[in-house]
Amino acid sequence: MALNIVIMAAGKGTRMKSALPKVLHKLAGRSLLRHVLDMTQGLQAQRNVVITGHGAEAVEAAVAGPGVQFVRQMPQLGTGHAIQQAVPALPEDEGTTLILNGDVPLIKQATAQALVQACDGKALVLLTIHLSDPTGYGRIVRQGGQADGNVLAIVEHKDASAEQRAIREGYTGMMAAPTGALKRWVSQLKNENAQGEYYLTDIVAMAVAEGVPVLGIAAPNETEVLGVNSPVQLADLERRFQLEQAETLLEAGVRLADPRRFDVRGTLSCGQDVEIDVNCVFEGTVVLGDNVRIGANCVIRNASIGAGTRIHEFTHIDGEKAGGAQVGAGALIGPFARLRPGADLGDEVHIGNFVEVKNSSLAKGAKANHLAYLGDATVGERVNYGAGSITANYDGANKHRTVIGADVHVGSNCVLIAPVEIGAGATIGGGSTITKPVAAGELSVARGKQVAIAGWSRPLKKR
Amino acid sequence: MALNIVIMAAGKGTRMKSALPKVLHKLAGRSLLRHVLDMTQGLQAQRNVVITGHGAEAVEAAVAGPGVQFVRQMPQLGTGHAIQQAVPALPEDEGTTLILNGDVPLIKQATAQALVQACDGKALVLLTIHLSDPTGYGRIVRQGGQADGNVLAIVEHKDASAEQRAIREGYTGMMAAPTGALKRWVSQLKNENAQGEYYLTDIVAMAVAEGVPVLGIAAPNETEVLGVNSPVQLADLERRFQLEQAETLLEAGVRLADPRRFDVRGTLSCGQDVEIDVNCVFEGTVVLGDNVRIGANCVIRNASIGAGTRIHEFTHIDGEKAGGAQVGAGALIGPFARLRPGADLGDEVHIGNFVEVKNSSLAKGAKANHLAYLGDATVGERVNYGAGSITANYDGANKHRTVIGADVHVGSNCVLIAPVEIGAGATIGGGSTITKPVAAGELSVARGKQVAIAGWSRPLKKR
Amino acid sequence: MALNIVIMAAGKGTRMKSALPKVLHKLAGRSLLRHVLDMTQGLQAQRNVVITGHGAEAVEAAVAGPGVQFVRQMPQLGTGHAIQQAVPALPEDEGTTLILNGDVPLIKQATAQALVQACDGKALVLLTIHLSDPTGYGRIVRQGGQADGNVLAIVEHKDASAEQRAIREGYTGMMAAPTGALKRWVSQLKNENAQGEYYLTDIVAMAVAEGVPVLGIAAPNETEVLGVNSPVQLADLERRFQLEQAETLLEAGVRLADPRRFDVRGTLSCGQDVEIDVNCVFEGTVVLGDNVRIGANCVIRNASIGAGTRIHEFTHIDGEKAGGAQVGAGALIGPFARLRPGADLGDEVHIGNFVEVKNSSLAKGAKANHLAYLGDATVGERVNYGAGSITANYDGANKHRTVIGADVHVGSNCVLIAPVEIGAGATIGGGSTITKPVAAGELSVARGKQVAIAGWSRPLKKR
Repeated sequence: MALNIVIMAAGKGTRMKSALPKVLHKLAGRSLLRHVLDMTQGLQAQRNVVITGHGAEAVEAAVAGPGVQFVRQMPQLGTGHAIQQAVPALPEDEGTTLILNGDVPLIKQATAQALVQACDGKALVLLTIHLSDPTGYGRIVRQGGQADGNVLAIVEHKDASAEQRAIREGYTGMMAAPTGALKRWVSQLKNENAQGEYYLTDIVAMAVAEGVPVLGIAAPNETEVLGVNSPVQLADLERRFQLEQAETLLEAGVRLADPRRFDVRGTLSCGQDVEIDVNCVFEGTVVLGDNVRIGANCVIRNASIGAGTRIHEFTHIDGEKAGGAQVGAGALIGPFARLRPGADLGDEVHIGNFVEVKNSSLAKGAKANHLAYLGDATVGERVNYGAGSITANYDGANKHRTVIGADVHVGSNCVLIAPVEIGAGATIGGGSTITKPVAAGELSVARGKQVAIAGWSRPLKKR
Repeated sequence: MALNIVIMAAGKGTRMKSALPKVLHKLAGRSLLRHVLDMTQGLQAQRNVVITGHGAEAVEAAVAGPGVQFVRQMPQLGTGHAIQQAVPALPEDEGTTLILNGDVPLIKQATAQALVQACDGKALVLLTIHLSDPTGYGRIVRQGGQADGNVLAIVEHKDASAEQRAIREGYTGMMAAPTGALKRWVSQLKNENAQGEYYLTDIVAMAVAEGVPVLGIAAPNETEVLGVNSPVQLADLERRFQLEQAETLLEAGVRLADPRRFDVRGTLSCGQDVEIDVNCVFEGTVVLGDNVRIGANCVIRNASIGAGTRIHEFTHIDGEKAGGAQVGAGALIGPFARLRPGADLGDEVHIGNFVEVKNSSLAKGAKANHLAYLGDATVGERVNYGAGSITANYDGANKHRTVIGADVHVGSNCVLIAPVEIGAGATIGGGSTITKPVAAGELSVARGKQVAIAGWSRPLKKR
Repeated sequence: MALNIVIMAAGKGTRMKSALPKVLHKLAGRSLLRHVLDMTQGLQAQRNVVITGHGAEAVEAAVAGPGVQFVRQMPQLGTGHAIQQAVPALPEDEGTTLILNGDVPLIKQATAQALVQACDGKALVLLTIHLSDPTGYGRIVRQGGQADGNVLAIVEHKDASAEQRAIREGYTGMMAAPTGALKRWVSQLKNENAQGEYYLTDIVAMAVAEGVPVLGIAAPNETEVLGVNSPVQLADLERRFQLEQAETLLEAGVRLADPRRFDVRGTLSCGQDVEIDVNCVFEGTVVLGDNVRIGANCVIRNASIGAGTRIHEFTHIDGEKAGGAQVGAGALIGPFARLRPGADLGDEVHIGNFVEVKNSSLAKGAKANHLAYLGDATVGERVNYGAGSITANYDGANKHRTVIGADVHVGSNCVLIAPVEIGAGATIGGGSTITKPVAAGELSVARGKQVAIAGWSRPLKKR
């Protein structure tokens, strides 16, 4: 049966105290609204209608894409008014319309699906939540007070009797409704209340009056239905989401030293027997092979790490886009290493402390262990790239490439001024500045002669 | 009406197991006693009397300042004895004396003010606390058992009847008293008890006997009245305080990735839409402009960061004193950057990985992106300071300055031996050691000629 | 009386989803089984018998040592079957046999000792635990329902009546038994149950039938008896253990900025007034002298740090084995410093940012403050080792030593090509590559002459 999804995303979010529209605030690296849209992917709706308002242009630009259409609600006169704006975008009368909130990011597909299935184009289905303290929530009044009784009304907290306030089941703001009925009901909403707003919840009474069954389905946990109205709530949801992700990985066999000091903002795929020490952050698309071990305090973004590789503490990897940084199997990286976009490291490569690699490939077994920079370089197998050595890839205007053949030994504190090529098996003496090609197997040096300065005396400390 | 504040700070704090007097232990970078003194600033007392004892000299040296006077309590014979020592420092009989504890650091001004106002030079006012488990606390016995009844007695836990132990309201050790009455009461205290000590709480009975109203005002939460007697308690209060600070910032719109991995030891001022990732530490006076983003694991001390600047992960900034490090707007700093005192970075400056900047200014758009040291340097606009390049600012005896004009391109692994000046638009070839001035627009190189060594063969691995 | 200890370690741990046998998973750096074995050291058993099965070879290789013997249980047909396999390793009939679990790592010696003493070769003693929710645990049915009554039976959760399920005392899987009786009882076990397994708990009924007293001793807390069956449980126990360690250190006077961001995997010994900032990790054997301060985000492994030394943020020290890295008193290390095996730093040594020290000694007062590498070097007192300078200790085949005398000043970006010796008081000009010995007191330079290239024009940006 045809499914429409309507996502309310017009609110300003004053309590966020931000120039950014509320639904564009990020949780685990994705905007709140994006979380909802991503969840809906699996629901195969015929259309996703996003109701925008405050910051509409920014919101629309941020989430525009195939299958997403926008309607604007300006001014914002309540939830019912929001749905009224969406009606023209819902041409059919058959089927189900699922109403979600752009600031309730962690609802799961199974829950949304349950609403849709229970509705089946016929019933009005409210998503509810059981809470030990439902203060502030509209209470779900069910027939006969039975847990599975049909819903008779949603009573706002402020309007609730003492008996109704004792009800622990609250309304979450999300529902599924028969599309045709929904359109009819919202057209009949009135704003005769103190705020002069149109409340979507008023359709419950209409449905009850028409004899349309009103069902309540409880969300499996509070996290799925919590909205974000302030940075405090955003931080709380962030932590819930991160802990949930950590537990999912733990259950899959990933070993985390501290699930509460672990952040994934994107997708982390792990092989068997992966170990991740405390306080690591993963962003974008990260793939870790079997037996990878990540030391404490690493930041890894858009990278693939081969089996058995060890990433030591304080390593920073950022491939910018998925697959943008690659490390082979059995490699040793860090501590204090930085891999940047285009770092493509073969098996058993070693990158040590205070070493930066950008847009460079290192073939199997190559090593750069100490205080070095490799930018725009092609490095052969087993190359030993000395401490303090630098590829001078930028002449102030253009970037050039350095090519280092297999088995080259580059001494300490060398500068390789690109474009330049070092033949296989060559050796560069420590302290050399290499501006010309070096033939394979050759030793090249480029440095001054060591002289002792006679009669020199040390400077004295000035007063 | 005249207000005196007396702060008890004579205790040793044996359980701290420290050579430092207890009240000098630090919470969020300030000593416990300093927290109390800082809070009292707003109370406009005519005098602040600190009672010292253990480690008196160290304590007095640590907090001496305008408006603070000290009396010594040696030996320490109880809380009443402490106040007896303070009496000579309280010449007037009118007005109110507020008694605080130097090891109860988180009491808020509003709470102290409430005690003072309720006292009004006439009543004895006890600060109390409602606890689910008041074990160990002296119980507040009120008239008729009424929550707002006058206090009849404080009954020590060990002396309390079963009925009294059921009382959930305990005494916190803080009070406000009419100054004249307080002086009279403490002069009448007796030490006829097992410990041979003078208990300040005995004045409650005197007040009751005299018909002076004894009031109890409950602290709004436990955190304000918790004392520090051990490192466990200190760590607990530290975390409570840090979480409270985090929540205050969140409510102001600052976005914190994890409020429980966030430390401020000093003052952090934030513009709009500031984002702070996990595990950052701020010390001293730190100012962050609008839209500043701080990556994970940064340590920032005494620095001002301009609007829109991004501080990447693992950046360490320490200006030593307020404003000691400055970063302009739209700058990119880190990861793995270190800014030290006197770093003064203009707008759009880039400081990259493994770069240290000390006592140096970089004008707008200057860049030092890789493994470099800038010390005692003046760097012009748009300068590109190459990877691995170093200002040799120290000749073993004195520091000298390096001046680099606008648009200079310094190649990789250069040494600029100060004092030296590089004219605007000049270029320094990679690997050069510059000891003499370079004229504007000129290319200078200072390096050996590259030669191939014929007949050379690689060393062999020794057995 | 003779004590045998039998440790069950044959399980696979399917839920660990790991190629590693369950008991080899690590908690705080030691395998689960190693924790149990280490705890038993103080019990002075005449033998420790480890029952292996899944991954037996790996398990045996991992924990083999004096006083540990192995029996194999293949296939695994239940706990009773496991003990049956151990019987041949228990020749005597006198004395006590203590049965522990290799996947219950945090049981304390006092608890184990209590079981052994209560058994005294005569009683069957079960280790029990009082839980608010004992779901899943076998319930301890005691005589007359008395808390100190003899145990009549262990009733499995699934077999328990409603009344029995209300019992809050559960069986932990650990017990002590008279050796002779244990051997007789396990020989009589039957596997007539759905799983076809031999249950060790069936011996309770045998003991009761024989009139052997069956006692229950409750563990002091849940942490001691929790087993590890999944990565979630492992992470939970890791955190409990770490927090417990943190509290022990706090109680000893160590000041931890955040006990929940603190990890010790090994032994951390601290003098008085040690302060450790957030998010530090200690591994192996680490000794911190009085007044040592460790900044945020440090990783310290197998190192000794002298009194009053400050380790700044982001410092990584790894001595590989106990004492493998040494720092004297009053030293300043970091931020962003790395000390590797064989780093031996004297008093008042300064190691600054982006500096790596490996297999090198630095005498009192020597400094290497900026972007430098010291490998295989002997550095004298008060040496100033310049920014960016490197010891070229590796010629591509062999490592060589650099010797730098007292008071030497090494300029910036120098290379010292080992083997080479710099005499006391010598100066090396910045940018020099030193290949020959330098005499004491002498200034040596080895660099190209600075020349200005006439008529040069900058490269232009290519399209």
